[in-house]
Amino acid sequence: MADEFGPMNEKLAALRVNTERFRADFETLSGIGASGDGGVHRLALGEAHLAARAWLRERIEAADLEFRIDNAGNHSAFLACGPQGAPTLLLGSHLDSVPHGGRFDGALGVLAALEAIRVVREAKISLPVHLEAIDFTDEEGTLVGMLGSAALAGVLQPEALQDPRGGRAALEAGLARAGLTEQGLFDARRDPASLAGYLELHIEQGLRLLQAGADVGIVTGIAGINSYRLAFVGRPDHAGTTPMRDRRDAALGASAFTLAARELVLRDFPACVANVGEMRFTPGAFNIVPGRVELALEFRAPDAEKFRRLERALLERAREEAGRFDLELEIEWLGKCDPAPTSQAARRAFAGAAAALGLKHVSFATGAGHDGQSFASVCPMGMIFVPSVDGASHSPREFTRWEDCVNGANVLLQGALRFAHV
Amino acid sequence: MADEFGPMNEKLAALRVNTERFRADFETLSGIGASGDGGVHRLALGEAHLAARAWLRERIEAADLEFRIDNAGNHSAFLACGPQGAPTLLLGSHLDSVPHGGRFDGALGVLAALEAIRVVREAKISLPVHLEAIDFTDEEGTLVGMLGSAALAGVLQPEALQDPRGGRAALEAGLARAGLTEQGLFDARRDPASLAGYLELHIEQGLRLLQAGADVGIVTGIAGINSYRLAFVGRPDHAGTTPMRDRRDAALGASAFTLAARELVLRDFPACVANVGEMRFTPGAFNIVPGRVELALEFRAPDAEKFRRLERALLERAREEAGRFDLELEIEWLGKCDPAPTSQAARRAFAGAAAALGLKHVSFATGAGHDGQSFASVCPMGMIFVPSVDGASHSPREFTRWEDCVNGANVLLQGALRFAHV
Repeated sequence: MADEFGPMNEKLAALRVNTERFRADFETLSGIGASGDGGVHRLALGEAHLAARAWLRERIEAADLEFRIDNAGNHSAFLACGPQGAPTLLLGSHLDSVPHGGRFDGALGVLAALEAIRVVREAKISLPVHLEAIDFTDEEGTLVGMLGSAALAGVLQPEALQDPRGGRAALEAGLARAGLTEQGLFDARRDPASLAGYLELHIEQGLRLLQAGADVGIVTGIAGINSYRLAFVGRPDHAGTTPMRDRRDAALGASAFTLAARELVLRDFPACVANVGEMRFTPGAFNIVPGRVELALEFRAPDAEKFRRLERALLERAREEAGRFDLELEIEWLGKCDPAPTSQAARRAFAGAAAALGLKHVSFATGAGHDGQSFASVCPMGMIFVPSVDGASHSPREFTRWEDCVNGANVLLQGALRFAHV
Repeated sequence: MADEFGPMNEKLAALRVNTERFRADFETLSGIGASGDGGVHRLALGEAHLAARAWLRERIEAADLEFRIDNAGNHSAFLACGPQGAPTLLLGSHLDSVPHGGRFDGALGVLAALEAIRVVREAKISLPVHLEAIDFTDEEGTLVGMLGSAALAGVLQPEALQDPRGGRAALEAGLARAGLTEQGLFDARRDPASLAGYLELHIEQGLRLLQAGADVGIVTGIAGINSYRLAFVGRPDHAGTTPMRDRRDAALGASAFTLAARELVLRDFPACVANVGEMRFTPGAFNIVPGRVELALEFRAPDAEKFRRLERALLERAREEAGRFDLELEIEWLGKCDPAPTSQAARRAFAGAAAALGLKHVSFATGAGHDGQSFASVCPMGMIFVPSVDGASHSPREFTRWEDCVNGANVLLQGALRFAHV
């Protein structure tokens, strides 16, 4: 520790989050958009999400921090603790949730970031950088996916807004509800020279920490995510009078592909995952053979080579299954995030913090998408995880023990202080 | 032929429909509710359907036939050609269509029945029975399905009106538009002793006649239809962080069942069909492993034994596939129509008529639902088909060559005369 802080910075090394304040904030936030079963339903730019952000703004202002909002709707608490013209170290995550999701995903990281900055402000210390705790817009992709972080990092693609995951109408309605404009999103971009880095605490959403008996996970990289809409197209026919052999039943191609995708990943891509999260049947009646089935395909891989190879293999398999059942296949690419390695400096800072706090850490790549991906090509990026009970996430069953939340927040705080001094 | 009619009935055997009048009626009717692409959109008790019925009433009255309407809205032309107190032989079909359906389905059978009765009236002949050409209300199930025939046959279930296919509001609005009441429907029931039988001409809606090179199909029975909603229930999980092996992915059970149902029917139930016409994914997002998939299952079988066996086999298979992927299975039964065999006397009458007319016939069971099912337990029931080009139906592409329509109407006329003399 001395190698990074030096003896005069023992004050820094002693800083810890205020657990009562942190917990009270977490409990209050968990009630905004609560679904009554322990989870939350805070879709990006929906009413509950905007209510959570309004509450966050109150908490920022109550802490005598500077409240900022940009043209992508990102909300933040800014602390000018660095020298004039110093770059800003961002700490953050997101307050939006998946439909009927859990109360830890994203929320924990935003509140830990806010708490870390409150502690620094109260300690009246100076750092080589300014600090900013940020809540990014639409990490989960209800509308676009990592919309706010991509806009801030300057990597938002105009095409991503043309045919967004949630549809154009939902995007337009969400932006209008939040008082944002489509063109304005691009104005949220910040000069990379103004960014010292981006650090995030998140729940693991998996079982590796529990299986390893570790307190903290240091993320070596974020898996690439690619998504497609595949349409298997046959012919709608009378389900009573059309013999089984004469049908061109789109459900068969979609079903066979769904099973095949799983087998393919299990057999040939052990570090990867694939998901068919939705199917839409047309016409969708009991007594009509499905003429068209659209499915939502998403897959992830930890490195660029597997990422490309998995994409080829899945699309090839979709074509094969369509052909096997005499169906057409329509392929619509919806966008991807390339695999994103984390910064070595951030990993070292987190490892040093964990060691100083007496916490066991392990390092691994993650399959979850995170705002950090937006920064991979722009500034140093780092990420830590705390354990998820049962590995559950994107579900009301999502749970992390409170002591793990506190450990994570302290590693974020101490890691940020170390990273700032690099 | 002589064995059924005897030499003094050569006059009967010579009767044929008036093709010009029949065709003029068909062309006029095709224009009522025409969708402009060759099809019609005449939803039961909607404006176009009621307009078609008003026109039918005019045609009945113009033919000096007795117009009748019952409390289920069934419209008919009655000809008292039998002795006092004789039962009535019903000939008929329906004027309502599916949404954006074809102009032959139902309409052909009603007009052929009307034409047959006009011919008998003009020939001034007496028969052992009275004749009635009838247009049944809502065969297609826009509201309830076979509503008019079930009411007349006395097999309408009060429960069928509580949660109708088209919803309560549509049923109430339709009845009101036609001046009918819910309670009144049950008053449409006729004493089975008053019914000599029910005979219907319909388009095949399939390819068997064309494949067999036959002019007429004699229906041996109407398949039973059974429908279920099956829910495969697993666990929604993060699609990035949950390893493939740790998932309880509901899409896998639903997909495996869809493929298995087809294989099962192809292998063990050659005369049957099964359809998975719809799936609904919950939560239904790209990045969440599907925790619940509900599918719409419908299956049909030509006889009671296969009907029961197929039901058992499908449900057993659904349980197996759920178990294979560590899923729960929820089974919701939505109702059935039992298989309805046609009367042997009706089949013999139609076969004799086809032979006398020099037409090639084949016999088979049908998978489509028809009003005849309502009569299966009440009185003798018979049905014939004419060829459907491309097998298309429930579509504006529906088409039957005019000479086939005329052949069918003559087999209906001659079949009815033979059946009346049994």
